Amino acid sequence: MNHNEPSLSLVWDTFCGYQRTAALKAAIELDVFTQIATGTTTLEAIAERCQAAPRGLRALLDHLVIDGFLLRDARGYHLSATAAAFLDRNAPGYLGSAVTFVTAPRIVEGFTKLTEAVRRGTSAVTEDGALAPENPVWVEFARAMAPLAGMTAMLLGNLLEIERAPSWKVLDIAAGHGMFGITLARLNAGVRVIAVDWKNVLAVAEDNARTANVTERFQTRPGSAFEVAFGDGYDLVLLPNFLHHFDPATCERLLTKVRAALAPGGRVVIVEFVPNDDRSGPADAVRFSLVMLAGTPAGDAYTFAEYQRMLSNAGFRQPTLHDLAPSPARVVMAER
Amino acid sequence: MNHNEPSLSLVWDTFCGYQRTAALKAAIELDVFTQIATGTTTLEAIAERCQAAPRGLRALLDHLVIDGFLLRDARGYHLSATAAAFLDRNAPGYLGSAVTFVTAPRIVEGFTKLTEAVRRGTSAVTEDGALAPENPVWVEFARAMAPLAGMTAMLLGNLLEIERAPSWKVLDIAAGHGMFGITLARLNAGVRVIAVDWKNVLAVAEDNARTANVTERFQTRPGSAFEVAFGDGYDLVLLPNFLHHFDPATCERLLTKVRAALAPGGRVVIVEFVPNDDRSGPADAVRFSLVMLAGTPAGDAYTFAEYQRMLSNAGFRQPTLHDLAPSPARVVMAER
Repeated sequence: MNHNEPSLSLVWDTFCGYQRTAALKAAIELDVFTQIATGTTTLEAIAERCQAAPRGLRALLDHLVIDGFLLRDARGYHLSATAAAFLDRNAPGYLGSAVTFVTAPRIVEGFTKLTEAVRRGTSAVTEDGALAPENPVWVEFARAMAPLAGMTAMLLGNLLEIERAPSWKVLDIAAGHGMFGITLARLNAGVRVIAVDWKNVLAVAEDNARTANVTERFQTRPGSAFEVAFGDGYDLVLLPNFLHHFDPATCERLLTKVRAALAPGGRVVIVEFVPNDDRSGPADAVRFSLVMLAGTPAGDAYTFAEYQRMLSNAGFRQPTLHDLAPSPARVVMAER
Repeated sequence: MNHNEPSLSLVWDTFCGYQRTAALKAAIELDVFTQIATGTTTLEAIAERCQAAPRGLRALLDHLVIDGFLLRDARGYHLSATAAAFLDRNAPGYLGSAVTFVTAPRIVEGFTKLTEAVRRGTSAVTEDGALAPENPVWVEFARAMAPLAGMTAMLLGNLLEIERAPSWKVLDIAAGHGMFGITLARLNAGVRVIAVDWKNVLAVAEDNARTANVTERFQTRPGSAFEVAFGDGYDLVLLPNFLHHFDPATCERLLTKVRAALAPGGRVVIVEFVPNDDRSGPADAVRFSLVMLAGTPAGDAYTFAEYQRMLSNAGFRQPTLHDLAPSPARVVMAER
């Protein structure tokens, strides 16, 4: 972006940003991309397959051409490379379902009350909703985010060189869909996973473990990560997308409990949006602070410097930061 | 945009588009840009001026840096060229108020029900709300959109060479804020304007006429554009951002009535988002079709070819299309 020239388009596009979200969400709900991927290209044919009115669909598809998800030529509409990779339900990288979580009513509500949240310095949504026991939002999260998490988990497996690892015992905290532990187990037949989350959420993880054919090496411990007994002797403890919900003191309390569950030589593996220490980037990580402000009492996207402090206060040694490109997620690891 | 490489960022950014809208809206509501423009640069000082919590404001301002509205250096936060031109309340080009209309509950509701609108081929919002007499949404529109319209009206004045024009009699239909007619009157002391809109909306236009010091040459005719008597002998009839609400048959009916009100040699001047005939661009104009699908029974962003047909059916001659760069608006003109 060129910051030297005033851009009316930038202002207008940002005013209308919610309309691009809605257009893509509608297309995913109508399964437009999957139909086009099968070679259905004319407006009339796509409308019939998606049970939509041609007049409505034309406005939607033309919007998606402008937005970069479709291309159009004399034969009709086609998928852009992005849509083919991520929005066709039959593609291995499909992650359209994630829109359901990113636009869940509770998250949207936080942004509807964003001015008030900035004034207060904390979410203006009725407090503690999402962090209450067995809140169904996390079942929805687990279902919607599994594909995206599966991709990130593959990248984590590469980082950990999982295929050459010994028979690790892995604790997956606030496992949700369970895809992080399950993927490690799938990539190494010696890995055993114990997953912690609310009981209703773990039912989704158990489904995913069955699909991945790792049920025999997948156990669950239902309950709050702050209260349930973890057991001990773990080689790895995974904390994927969990610490951002809490203030640093709460994170330190949990990290202390995690450290006690590790075997000698064991490591904690934190998967998160981690902004650079000066919060200048990466873009998604910096922006994620606002998601936490809008929706949680005291959560944040913590920098590596902030994680170093929390980990040190919890007794960990040698924290390191790792990218997981092309995923926007990063990994912070530390030794017991 | 490179359509050849799959972009996870494009998907994620679009999922989160509504968050960028909310961030900019919150910053406008807190008047962050105006405060920074006065030289308030540190987080703490901006927080005090805007009555916000530093913790909340930090998350918001860092988001706005990523989004292109702020810059940050060792001395604190500064406006980007875009924010300085359009978001500082003291700048002549201020148009922050437009966010109030673009994100008005009724418009947002249309997008919340977009999937249903695409299925039906018409808005899923309770029918006819916005088009009902004296709906207060148009008072809000008139207030919020006046600055942006004022800028577009200046560009229209250039196109019409208004400063060299004779003593035109101008009819401004669905005038709203009245800025189109008022700006022409301000630029040429011989221009007289008659503005048509709901009575509650015309009160806003009358305020704007007073501010522009053209009250003596500004009259109003309250009522529906389809029912009120226009009078006759007009040199120009303005139809700014009005026809997009209706189906072509309704537009033709109104254009026929407009033509009858024109003096010999008179012209109709339609200001609209006008997509190219193949709907390949301009971006904002193509996207605007979806806004009309989401929010109106049968409105659309019509192409020039479609306007040519409607104008011809209403008896007009020699339609022409004109850009108003840097505004995304275009002008369709035709002779009686």
